[in-house]
Amino acid sequence: MANKQEELESISPNELNPVAGGGLLDRRLFLKRGLLFGTASAIAGTAGTLMAEDTLPKNVTSKDPWMLKPGKPFSNYGQPSPHESETIRWISANAMASGNGVSWCPLHKLDGMITPNGLFYERHHNGVPEIDPKVHKLLVHGMVEKPLTFSIDALMRYPMTSRICFIECGGNSNAGWHKNPAQSEVGYFHGLISCSEWTGVPLSIILDEAGLDSNASWLIAEAADGIAMEISVPVEKAMDDAILALYQNGERIRPENGYPLRLLLPGWEGVTNVKWLRRLQATDRPVMARNETSKYTELLPTGKARQFTFVMDAKSLITSPSPGKEMQGPGYYQITGMAWTGRGKITKVEVSADGGKSWAEAELQEPVLSQCYTRFRIPWHWEGDLAVLKSRATDETGYVQPERDVLVKERGTHGYFHYNAIVSWEISPEGYISHVYA
Amino acid sequence: MANKQEELESISPNELNPVAGGGLLDRRLFLKRGLLFGTASAIAGTAGTLMAEDTLPKNVTSKDPWMLKPGKPFSNYGQPSPHESETIRWISANAMASGNGVSWCPLHKLDGMITPNGLFYERHHNGVPEIDPKVHKLLVHGMVEKPLTFSIDALMRYPMTSRICFIECGGNSNAGWHKNPAQSEVGYFHGLISCSEWTGVPLSIILDEAGLDSNASWLIAEAADGIAMEISVPVEKAMDDAILALYQNGERIRPENGYPLRLLLPGWEGVTNVKWLRRLQATDRPVMARNETSKYTELLPTGKARQFTFVMDAKSLITSPSPGKEMQGPGYYQITGMAWTGRGKITKVEVSADGGKSWAEAELQEPVLSQCYTRFRIPWHWEGDLAVLKSRATDETGYVQPERDVLVKERGTHGYFHYNAIVSWEISPEGYISHVYA
Repeated sequence: MANKQEELESISPNELNPVAGGGLLDRRLFLKRGLLFGTASAIAGTAGTLMAEDTLPKNVTSKDPWMLKPGKPFSNYGQPSPHESETIRWISANAMASGNGVSWCPLHKLDGMITPNGLFYERHHNGVPEIDPKVHKLLVHGMVEKPLTFSIDALMRYPMTSRICFIECGGNSNAGWHKNPAQSEVGYFHGLISCSEWTGVPLSIILDEAGLDSNASWLIAEAADGIAMEISVPVEKAMDDAILALYQNGERIRPENGYPLRLLLPGWEGVTNVKWLRRLQATDRPVMARNETSKYTELLPTGKARQFTFVMDAKSLITSPSPGKEMQGPGYYQITGMAWTGRGKITKVEVSADGGKSWAEAELQEPVLSQCYTRFRIPWHWEGDLAVLKSRATDETGYVQPERDVLVKERGTHGYFHYNAIVSWEISPEGYISHVYA
Repeated sequence: MANKQEELESISPNELNPVAGGGLLDRRLFLKRGLLFGTASAIAGTAGTLMAEDTLPKNVTSKDPWMLKPGKPFSNYGQPSPHESETIRWISANAMASGNGVSWCPLHKLDGMITPNGLFYERHHNGVPEIDPKVHKLLVHGMVEKPLTFSIDALMRYPMTSRICFIECGGNSNAGWHKNPAQSEVGYFHGLISCSEWTGVPLSIILDEAGLDSNASWLIAEAADGIAMEISVPVEKAMDDAILALYQNGERIRPENGYPLRLLLPGWEGVTNVKWLRRLQATDRPVMARNETSKYTELLPTGKARQFTFVMDAKSLITSPSPGKEMQGPGYYQITGMAWTGRGKITKVEVSADGGKSWAEAELQEPVLSQCYTRFRIPWHWEGDLAVLKSRATDETGYVQPERDVLVKERGTHGYFHYNAIVSWEISPEGYISHVYA
């Protein structure tokens, strides 16, 4: 306690000055507890607290209505509160082929780094197959010494490992390529990404056991869905950190995430993380499937196309404040959001409240893990003026998330995949929040 | 890749020898990929693989039955596979008062360190109140400068922090005190513990804002359930790392875990992590509530009782193999389970396969976090003989999980709370797994 007290007493008036334009405050003020609020009050020229009701408390012996009756019973498997019925995935499926489409994760309703399994984004080509785990098998064949077939029960006996990492669809945020800034809540624009703890068998163990031919350079991974979705994966990635995932956030993987078996390729675009995995064929060339030729490739300004763009680049988003939410008048706010990169760890997230003229470093929530969401937070005192909020991620390779005009210049105006530009929210003096290109 | 290849080639025959009695192998063999399996085959005197089917693969152009029809549609909020319908909380409620009891987390069905929200254990005294978050408020009063009332919307504007940590009921594993070893699956014996990522407002910020009196030494926390459950919390803990938790695993807290607001006291017994938090009263003495006097205290052999035993001691469990599961014949297995301590980080988990005569250190899954589940794993070659498996946790204070006879000697035979002795599973030559005192 002594140390904390010293910290409190050591706050100097200088520390309470904004560290960047528009009222961004030092991220370390979080460590100095409640004095921040006294300060913010002082800055705002108001007395008392900002958000609590400084009124006479209710009679402490009074009861709330739900205290006057027995509560609901125990349950075998819990569900969210009925009051959270708006915290849902937003379905956007093809009207002509209802199993083809996506459902978006409501990022604007969430906090922390784990995505609960029920809200993990979906991308299906022919719906969710209803697989019997007693029948489902994984075949490993092609350029191997001995082809092997694995039941799920057999895989459950292998050594496992766990890791927390994100999966992002290569087409996430694609409305960012539109000529004018689309207006939508964050999750229904950028929510083809989610983050779970995955547990399963390192793929390298299985490939070693099958005796992978040293001339094999690709694996063709096939799903047990209606289109037998297939994709090519370089052997190097398969042997590096790929996992045959059986568990997601502690329990067996959900059907829409690949039950009973998903190929996890940390940091790589979602389409390569093949769900309902049934077959891995070792070859010396990619299969040139639909989803790596006509789709998941990008036409560049040069007229050539980018292909096999596996790794997801560093990216960040402010989830609060964000469009669809309302400012509650001038005063103190915590700006928060998350950053991620397919290339390792996030090393820095900077936030601007003046449209990019000045930046302040945000606090990164520990633990910061590779290829994982990194939640960032920074205190902000909004004066009630026009403000433009941005966040900018840097990863351990030194890569810095680009401004939109830089990305468009490099990749052209025919983009659909791999949109990772800096996102800007404009706050009007009335507190209305909108998406802008700034 | 080069480094991995070198590692593979550097395995020496000595490394393949057991490192402890009963066939425990070096935990680092996991890092050396598939050669382990060739080795295990050799040890067992069998040819080929142990768990894969070394037969001709199925015709790769054949389709599984679920590939021949459209899959199920997208969903707003996902649910587990119908094939996992046995992965549920086991309800054990008081027949005379159905809202009083527990539901057990099925630890034996889970892996990794996150407990999915639907399976987080429950302990209620009067069921789950159906709280309207627009009406619910938190009152902070008593020995403070200015009493404050917080709506949930107001709390949502405060600075937040996230952490992954367990909550364990003080009465977890109480059947361990029985004279004879009770037989049950792990989760339905030891499953009054679960682990989530929690996000919320550090309580110290709120107490600073209210102006906590320097003579206040306790907080009385009250729940908005039918019994207005209350408990006393030392101010020191409240100011140290307590969190007013609003989110659990990314989404808002589930009703049975305290929606819309739970007091999180990392590492402290579950009953102090007050759900449905409505009131915090600063005082200079504990309230001496039912759940800190007649319950959650322990009669010692001396005739005196232990009270305010807040911190959960270091503990570990092997979840696989474990009672209710079946051995599939002699051969390679991965022993896994988890360890935790209320006193910081787990520093070591040792495993014995010969009833405690010899021990080998298990691999700890990264990240190892304070007051959090730590998953451990170690390879084991079971020869098919009688074996007794144990795990033993050590935490960063140097505390070592005790053998059962030591614990009983210290605490007597009237125990109910805080059972944390080493747990033993006996494997019969037939592969039947049972709980023993050994």
